[in-house]
Amino acid sequence: MSENTETLEPEIRGGEVPLRDEDGHIDPNWIETLHRRIEAEDGEAVVAMMEPLHAADTGDVLEALDAEARLSLVRLLGDKFDFEALTEVDESVRNELFENIPNAEIARGVAALDSDDAVTLLEDIEPQDRDDILSKLPAFERLSLRRSLDYPEDSAGRRMQTDFIAIPPFWTVGQTIDYLRGEKDLPDEFWQIYVVDAGYKLLGTLPLDKFLRTPRKVKIEEIMNAEVIEIEASEDQEEAARKFERYDLVEVAVIDESGRLVGVLTIDDMVDVIHEEATEDMQLLAGVGDEDLSDGVRDAVRSRSTWLVVSLLTASLSSLVIGLFDATIEQMVALAVLMPMVASMGGNAGTQTMTVTVRALAMRELDSFKLRRLVSREVLVGFCNGGIFAVLIGVVTWLRFANPELGLVIALAMVVNMVAAGSAGVLIPLTLDRFKIDPAVASATFVTMITDVVGFFSFLGLAGLWFHLF
Amino acid sequence: MSENTETLEPEIRGGEVPLRDEDGHIDPNWIETLHRRIEAEDGEAVVAMMEPLHAADTGDVLEALDAEARLSLVRLLGDKFDFEALTEVDESVRNELFENIPNAEIARGVAALDSDDAVTLLEDIEPQDRDDILSKLPAFERLSLRRSLDYPEDSAGRRMQTDFIAIPPFWTVGQTIDYLRGEKDLPDEFWQIYVVDAGYKLLGTLPLDKFLRTPRKVKIEEIMNAEVIEIEASEDQEEAARKFERYDLVEVAVIDESGRLVGVLTIDDMVDVIHEEATEDMQLLAGVGDEDLSDGVRDAVRSRSTWLVVSLLTASLSSLVIGLFDATIEQMVALAVLMPMVASMGGNAGTQTMTVTVRALAMRELDSFKLRRLVSREVLVGFCNGGIFAVLIGVVTWLRFANPELGLVIALAMVVNMVAAGSAGVLIPLTLDRFKIDPAVASATFVTMITDVVGFFSFLGLAGLWFHLF
Repeated sequence: MSENTETLEPEIRGGEVPLRDEDGHIDPNWIETLHRRIEAEDGEAVVAMMEPLHAADTGDVLEALDAEARLSLVRLLGDKFDFEALTEVDESVRNELFENIPNAEIARGVAALDSDDAVTLLEDIEPQDRDDILSKLPAFERLSLRRSLDYPEDSAGRRMQTDFIAIPPFWTVGQTIDYLRGEKDLPDEFWQIYVVDAGYKLLGTLPLDKFLRTPRKVKIEEIMNAEVIEIEASEDQEEAARKFERYDLVEVAVIDESGRLVGVLTIDDMVDVIHEEATEDMQLLAGVGDEDLSDGVRDAVRSRSTWLVVSLLTASLSSLVIGLFDATIEQMVALAVLMPMVASMGGNAGTQTMTVTVRALAMRELDSFKLRRLVSREVLVGFCNGGIFAVLIGVVTWLRFANPELGLVIALAMVVNMVAAGSAGVLIPLTLDRFKIDPAVASATFVTMITDVVGFFSFLGLAGLWFHLF
Repeated sequence: MSENTETLEPEIRGGEVPLRDEDGHIDPNWIETLHRRIEAEDGEAVVAMMEPLHAADTGDVLEALDAEARLSLVRLLGDKFDFEALTEVDESVRNELFENIPNAEIARGVAALDSDDAVTLLEDIEPQDRDDILSKLPAFERLSLRRSLDYPEDSAGRRMQTDFIAIPPFWTVGQTIDYLRGEKDLPDEFWQIYVVDAGYKLLGTLPLDKFLRTPRKVKIEEIMNAEVIEIEASEDQEEAARKFERYDLVEVAVIDESGRLVGVLTIDDMVDVIHEEATEDMQLLAGVGDEDLSDGVRDAVRSRSTWLVVSLLTASLSSLVIGLFDATIEQMVALAVLMPMVASMGGNAGTQTMTVTVRALAMRELDSFKLRRLVSREVLVGFCNGGIFAVLIGVVTWLRFANPELGLVIALAMVVNMVAAGSAGVLIPLTLDRFKIDPAVASATFVTMITDVVGFFSFLGLAGLWFHLF
């Protein structure tokens, strides 16, 4: 690899070699070269490589480095390090960096950010350090950041940008354009203009494209869109994200409890929320919690063992159920050979139904009509698949063990367990949701518990009954 | 419920009762009232209820109705039915409606849509009907839709909007504003202006906010952003969505193979792609494929039984492994009672690791550095959790069966299976990905197969060895 990077050096210096390959992966040679320059403390060369990068790419580069090189990189970049990059890295990476950067330096970096990015960086810092950093900021910014931080975690108020364009309804288009051209202290980016009364109550919104197409003398109130969608600052960010998704929004007004416009949410922040939310459910269902890729072994062991303890309890319950039938198994060891099939087929069918249900709940797709339709469909699907696989597994068992009765017993157990799987898969998430428990967190445990217990119980129980009767 | 709707009637007529309750669910009373009016063929009242709705809400209303009422609703609305609503419903609902609406009517509806929405509606229609509908459209629209439809399914070209604002670099801000104010045939919504040469090669982009803040006499080329991000029309929409997400884009240029600007992608379409993509993996891992909530029993049985057949084969393999040890189980039935614990703990741990890996692959988070870190972390986590649960389960087994040797055997099997789970959970998705197979589709099968087989084999095998030796 080292010869390779040697030949690439001059090009990389000029920013000519792209950071990413065609698949969007970061080029290891690029990182290798950067690493060597960091070790050589060659500040100028490091700046030359890092300066052309987008904040998102800088974030990815930080994550690709080890902890020591990461800190050296930030030090070498000095004033040129864009703190926005830290909004793109995992929390553990950020915390570790912040522990090693003086508060005054963090304050300088945070002051240059948009308020929503600043809040993202500040919200996970220890309260004491946070107050220290805030105290080093200009009064106006400090106040607006404090206000955002006062809203609950994961609320719209935490994610909002507090810089926005607000104008009175009686201005004309021309007056507004002149204001925008003259005013220096505007947000970096904006997609619509907010029309407010003297008390900052929102009267209407005006997308820039419509604004641009209107002659100068027209009054704002004549062209503004008076049917506004607002989001309360205390509302959960996921609810806000769902509104963005449903109504194809790019920017939306955030109001406080008294209805005053206090900020705006933009789609770029919501995209992250939408993505996180969607993959969070997948992780929760598998019992991985909110683990990050950069978490260490210790964190991963801790977060996963919680779920494994729960699985152990479920598995023990199944084991107790099997224990009830040890005499039956002793009579016929083929039962031990076959019983995991009934349980595992049920488990898989239950997981299918549960996944569909959890997803529909997460996307708020289930009104009462669809809910009824879903429940009856899932029970019916369980019954049909139960029938199909009962025949399959029954015939195979009959042939394998030359025992038609055993085939019948396993076929019956299969139907019972598949119907149980369908019912549990749909009813358990719905019940948890009704009790305001996130179905993604707890459903999998209960569903497998039911399919295991029902699977073992029905198969071994039916077999026992059969022996007892005949 | 009916008294309730009676009292609500006058308000609903005035559009006063909101369609959704506070949680964002559709109000059943609302639907009930609509249903009655559809049955009474009261066109005016139906229009009064439907007209104030956003296209996304109209889509949700359509999904909440049964097939017959849905079709009657579209008929009653006539010209007032906004075909955009059909971009918001499940494919099965759309197809069923299209089968019952005359092509001429569909053509009229499609002609009123933005090109990206029109393509969404047309792409799933049978080629013959599609050609018929296209032939009824004005020539210009027909050509641009055909061009989009010629790009592969799920490509950026399919999702792009072919209306956009393109101007030459030598225009001034004033000239451009006058053009925008004068021109009637502009896209409904736009977020940036594209600067092109005579051959429609992209020279730069200009966000509206920056454009607005610049004096009239300044030339466009002086203020345009010349470092443009472009997406090729043939590129996969998921790649495009990832770029939006990474670089916080709202709109991006789409170019054809010769580098000409042919369209633009907007964030609202990408949000759907991001969401679908994220939840698709969750569904694939659980073996539910691309099932929709509105799929019927037959479709659901078909799509899920494929996966269940695979699980049956895996389960049969485990059963064969257990069969190898039937003599050992006959000697000691406690083995049958305990063996599912080893397998299921391994299965759960393997699923955890696999989920983390599949997610990281889907989000393109794994460069070669993180990959190495992930593999070693997962094997180590498997070892640590294996150790923890080996002690737990070993002690409990010892006490429950008053048999320390059995405790030791199950503890050893647990460590072996947890390490196997960690290794399989990370290596199987990585290997599939290397061979260009979507890891979300096939990983779960292989991982559970390995944890089951290793679990049963190590536990029963060690037990057999023990008996044999002592």
